[in-house]
Amino acid sequence: MTHVDVRIYEVGPRDGLQNEAQPIPIDTKLRFIDLLAEAGLREIETTSFVAPGAIPQLADADVLMSRLERRDGVRYPVLVPNTRGLERAIAVNVDAVCVFTGVSEGYVQANLGKSIAESIADLTPVVVEAASRGWWVRAYLSSAFGDPYAGVVADAAVVDVAGRLLELGPGIDELVISDTIGVAGPADVRRVVGALTEFGIQPERLAMHFHDTRGTALANVMAALQQGVRCFDASAGGTGGSPYAPGAAGNLATEDLVYLLDREGLRHGVDLDGVLSAARFISQALGRPLASKVGQAGGWPA
Amino acid sequence: MTHVDVRIYEVGPRDGLQNEAQPIPIDTKLRFIDLLAEAGLREIETTSFVAPGAIPQLADADVLMSRLERRDGVRYPVLVPNTRGLERAIAVNVDAVCVFTGVSEGYVQANLGKSIAESIADLTPVVVEAASRGWWVRAYLSSAFGDPYAGVVADAAVVDVAGRLLELGPGIDELVISDTIGVAGPADVRRVVGALTEFGIQPERLAMHFHDTRGTALANVMAALQQGVRCFDASAGGTGGSPYAPGAAGNLATEDLVYLLDREGLRHGVDLDGVLSAARFISQALGRPLASKVGQAGGWPA
Repeated sequence: MTHVDVRIYEVGPRDGLQNEAQPIPIDTKLRFIDLLAEAGLREIETTSFVAPGAIPQLADADVLMSRLERRDGVRYPVLVPNTRGLERAIAVNVDAVCVFTGVSEGYVQANLGKSIAESIADLTPVVVEAASRGWWVRAYLSSAFGDPYAGVVADAAVVDVAGRLLELGPGIDELVISDTIGVAGPADVRRVVGALTEFGIQPERLAMHFHDTRGTALANVMAALQQGVRCFDASAGGTGGSPYAPGAAGNLATEDLVYLLDREGLRHGVDLDGVLSAARFISQALGRPLASKVGQAGGWPA
Repeated sequence: MTHVDVRIYEVGPRDGLQNEAQPIPIDTKLRFIDLLAEAGLREIETTSFVAPGAIPQLADADVLMSRLERRDGVRYPVLVPNTRGLERAIAVNVDAVCVFTGVSEGYVQANLGKSIAESIADLTPVVVEAASRGWWVRAYLSSAFGDPYAGVVADAAVVDVAGRLLELGPGIDELVISDTIGVAGPADVRRVVGALTEFGIQPERLAMHFHDTRGTALANVMAALQQGVRCFDASAGGTGGSPYAPGAAGNLATEDLVYLLDREGLRHGVDLDGVLSAARFISQALGRPLASKVGQAGGWPA
């Protein structure tokens, strides 16, 4: 990977598409992933090895990963919820995985059908095995800023779950602090990231996952940057959202993030026009207009 | 005015509505203005005394101001382009006016049909007379961050126009640095506000006018706050845009700004639900869905 100031972690193919009701042809997914790599994205979360019945849209994960032509220098992480998923991931030679839990019991229960403690128990063997194989591992802490059911989430809860994940050993490379329902403002980011760094976690070990549901996503990125965080999730075209998070809009659009970082003069290695091509491609495939801000307005100067 | 940390300056009735093609009944406008005041907004730019033919939507300015029931503690500024407009404003007893110029020749020429120098010459007698009457005066510097025709605008150009306006004397209370086409990022804000304060202008004398065209508006608000700016323009429902600024989306939505400031814990005196009522009212009157982020997602916690 050439030097960058900020890593843009693309979640479109997995998080962005997983809740789409209409089946998306595997060739479309592969083309989308390739356009993203073509645009300069070097970390593309590709699919999920959850039970095929749980997320029908990603039930093609095994075939997809087998057919994917992996480019040198590009990381293609996959979500792995448990040992069954791990076996499937091993079978298709992945080398980067994501595990998923959350900070609010209500959201984790609705999303995973289990408690936070149970979800950590389920992901533990995945982390241990992945680490022993030298894989890169990231762990999602969903609903870290707010819970659609119970409201505000306390910093202490975020620190608690982060601490329990890090007890699994050095195998977890990155903790993803996720504003699943898009409620955070910059002060919340300062507060939560501050609590985590005070707990002893280096900001370089954090990634932030924002939704632009209430217009604050880029303001939140700026706040996290000021605290030393250097990795941000985004999805080309702003796809995504969660059926378990009523009112949640899609992910922060990659093109909106790229525009901000370009204006800040921060190096990230991603080409705006390339991302817009990928975003247009997937929007067209989904049969809807490109809804991101920069997708509608274009870059600038033109 | 009770103490606030940040002033929210509402531009919906004037800037937000001026380019609407369908005539809006005067009762609708009056109701909109009243809902805004009801929500706690204490500065509501109400209409414009430009030539009636130039902006047909605001040709009812004289009647509107005569019929408006002004509330104590609420400022109702009107845009006044020249001495003819000034006479009309005097006739309806205004006590707060706005004058308008810009930083890029291309934009000012397209918008006003004259050069920056000519526009300053035209607004000069307005500022002088308003000041002599003890009116509150704000001056718009449009296209301060970018010009749809010529691209990037130099800091020096912003400082130059600001300087020429301030030479008119202490009568100008506030300079409004406007990102008319919504291209600025936080670094641009730091650069331009930095150049203005270095030139000797107190940040308290500045207001920022952002459009969320590329998703950066609230990040820009945060950057300006960090530099000491304490007044921000917004329009309930995010109405607005400019026919002379191709691709420009509407103004930063008041509800999105309120949400951010609430999360920051900054006092502004405006009630989110009240703004949403005003925003819903005007969106309905315009026959379109409420397009702002918070308008779609709602506040939080609910």
